[in-house]
Amino acid sequence: MQRLLLKNCAALIDDGANGYTHLPDAFIGIEGDTIVSIGAERPAGDWTEKDLGGALLIPGLINGHTHAAMTLLRGLGSGLPLDRWLNEAIFPVEDRMIRADMAAGNALAQMEMLRTGTTSYSDMYYFLDTEAELCQKSGMKVNLARPIVGFDPNETAAQSERARESIELFDTWHGKENDRIRVDFSIHAEYTNQERLVGEYAEIGKARGARMHLHLSETVKEHAACKQKYGKTPTEWFRDLGVLDLPTTAAHCVTVEDGDIAILKAYGVSPVHNPSSNLKLGSGFMRLKTLLDAGLNVGLGTDGTASNDNLNMFEEMHLAALIHNGYAADPTAIRAADVLNMATRNGAALQGRPDTGSLAVGKKADIVAVNLHAPHLIPSFDPLATLIYAAQGSDVCMTMVDGKVLYENGEYKTIDAERVLYDVHAALKRMYR
Amino acid sequence: MQRLLLKNCAALIDDGANGYTHLPDAFIGIEGDTIVSIGAERPAGDWTEKDLGGALLIPGLINGHTHAAMTLLRGLGSGLPLDRWLNEAIFPVEDRMIRADMAAGNALAQMEMLRTGTTSYSDMYYFLDTEAELCQKSGMKVNLARPIVGFDPNETAAQSERARESIELFDTWHGKENDRIRVDFSIHAEYTNQERLVGEYAEIGKARGARMHLHLSETVKEHAACKQKYGKTPTEWFRDLGVLDLPTTAAHCVTVEDGDIAILKAYGVSPVHNPSSNLKLGSGFMRLKTLLDAGLNVGLGTDGTASNDNLNMFEEMHLAALIHNGYAADPTAIRAADVLNMATRNGAALQGRPDTGSLAVGKKADIVAVNLHAPHLIPSFDPLATLIYAAQGSDVCMTMVDGKVLYENGEYKTIDAERVLYDVHAALKRMYR
Repeated sequence: MQRLLLKNCAALIDDGANGYTHLPDAFIGIEGDTIVSIGAERPAGDWTEKDLGGALLIPGLINGHTHAAMTLLRGLGSGLPLDRWLNEAIFPVEDRMIRADMAAGNALAQMEMLRTGTTSYSDMYYFLDTEAELCQKSGMKVNLARPIVGFDPNETAAQSERARESIELFDTWHGKENDRIRVDFSIHAEYTNQERLVGEYAEIGKARGARMHLHLSETVKEHAACKQKYGKTPTEWFRDLGVLDLPTTAAHCVTVEDGDIAILKAYGVSPVHNPSSNLKLGSGFMRLKTLLDAGLNVGLGTDGTASNDNLNMFEEMHLAALIHNGYAADPTAIRAADVLNMATRNGAALQGRPDTGSLAVGKKADIVAVNLHAPHLIPSFDPLATLIYAAQGSDVCMTMVDGKVLYENGEYKTIDAERVLYDVHAALKRMYR
Repeated sequence: MQRLLLKNCAALIDDGANGYTHLPDAFIGIEGDTIVSIGAERPAGDWTEKDLGGALLIPGLINGHTHAAMTLLRGLGSGLPLDRWLNEAIFPVEDRMIRADMAAGNALAQMEMLRTGTTSYSDMYYFLDTEAELCQKSGMKVNLARPIVGFDPNETAAQSERARESIELFDTWHGKENDRIRVDFSIHAEYTNQERLVGEYAEIGKARGARMHLHLSETVKEHAACKQKYGKTPTEWFRDLGVLDLPTTAAHCVTVEDGDIAILKAYGVSPVHNPSSNLKLGSGFMRLKTLLDAGLNVGLGTDGTASNDNLNMFEEMHLAALIHNGYAADPTAIRAADVLNMATRNGAALQGRPDTGSLAVGKKADIVAVNLHAPHLIPSFDPLATLIYAAQGSDVCMTMVDGKVLYENGEYKTIDAERVLYDVHAALKRMYR
């Protein structure tokens, strides 16, 4: 088993109280895929040593909500109003995407994610077996979610093709590759589904002990329409159908009401904040401080690149740290530690990966090295603040998952970048001919 | 005289109607410091050719409002409320800064700016002769502004040490280095000044044909206090004292009222939007769309790094493009072209540099090359949208001012980076001992 010692580095390690301790001279020992020692002194024993050139080590970033293969639709229809953006730009192209396109789009996404410090992501899309196969080779962690959609109120779970795919994906891939690949059950949203199918599908997921990933109250319009149609909020609708009995990740939660927040708390639902997407699409501002103050496990995500237009968690951290202070007219509203937690610990919790999310003995070695020597990061009085307010995705110099280096200084260790770009261009030619 | 031909590149050139034309295969000819030809074919004649490796050329970015040497205070006091941030973190350290510190801080700032595509900036701070000397060597363009501050209502311009410094700076440096170095008159803000000094100082500036750079209505508190004290808004106060008779750059303008906007328009004042700073400090949201719709020449700036924490105009462009859509719940509120205009054409106008701000024959060759081949920029359906929504400061591969390459692929051509970092660390030791 490999015994790897990371040295010549600083680290933001787990302080045991949901915060961070800055270790200016850190030695992190890794056996196999697990962190076995963290300290200020070189631990005894034989180690393969890895010199990090003075970089800052942080926990791998966890993208709590994305649609990875939408990289092939990056920026498509920018500037259109939401309904025209979906109906004229996004949906027609998505309809033309085939399995090979998804494979190429996912590989391009992983390249972008690895070089900006993401080690694990929760992906909601389709043809996801291509992504599972990709993760086998690339070494990234993923929670896959093939969402159900249905407009026929009489449709049963047994009749739903999408439900079948989703369940099959779970049965085939969940827990594979030493749990690197996990599969969540998934419901696209209230407004794209009917009660019967949702209720039956949730029952099936519960019986399997699965987690759930869905879109919740992203816009004022969908939230109001649900109340009009059912006399209840989307949160209440999902609760009443038994969906929230599964450990649930709820993307967006922009327009949740106070009563909804109490429900999310009671059911242990993890909202995921997607600041870029909510801003670009004009969806509005999640009540982040309210949700955090309520003790909710709020994650952070990029959403798809069609509405972002990146998969760069540093950008989302930066936005999450800034925009709510402006919106609340309070420079103390959101703390840097809150933001890093959202992108690490909270992401680990919502993915059902308690062995990830921070740098501590016994955790998996999902570690990112950030070069703090660039002119835009000098001086650094508080490395955590530097990371959140000043660092860029491009400052990542190494990304490691389960003790294995997947990206380092511009080089992908498990992905053939040239081949991916070839496949991407072929896919683009097909999709946009 | 150098005859330089930029080739193997695309370019966002001036479309003659305040917008951009994308030239996928561009040849840009430069004689000395000026663009003499732009076309899709190689122009006849002898040229020294420069291959840009397929990068996208854009006009040099213009940072409309910053305090450059505050790089040495980067991130200081992050998370403190505004008054404690200023009084406990910023002011005590600023008080200890000596001339050598300013020189080091400015050089560090120019390194960060050059590598993220800024060619010119409007700087409000002190010991600015050090910055003029730096620009002589580094080749950057700057509008220097030494602001007056005064709390004695009887103080005259002749008695004010700061007014003397400001005027002397103008008389010594304005127009130097073939107009690369310009000096603006500057009033820190209404709330830090008295009427007599401001009125007299503005008269002196007007007589010299100078431009003005000031802070205006940054926060609700200062705006309300001014109305309380004088029965007029800060905009009215400056107008009534004759200040707006000078071509004026007004940083922030977060809390300007409708009547103020009419005054700014009537007097041709250029507001500068500083989204990062306004968000981080909790100052709020400038009414950007309202100001643009009113036909104001709105620039874009980073403010100082103590409240940003970068001097990265790509980040400000990204924020300016996103946050107002979220705030207005309208994904069409701010267009990508509006944002690039703010960072280029509008910046050129507010600096009094009509020979910069776009790629057109006859303009100065202030040109930035952006590498669009990175995974996070593929595909690019609309290069302008890619630039604003997806590109990062780190994608800049070349920055040229007046036809001279100042930065290229990690290398500074006119700045001794190692020496700067040495000086910076010496300054930091002194300031924070």
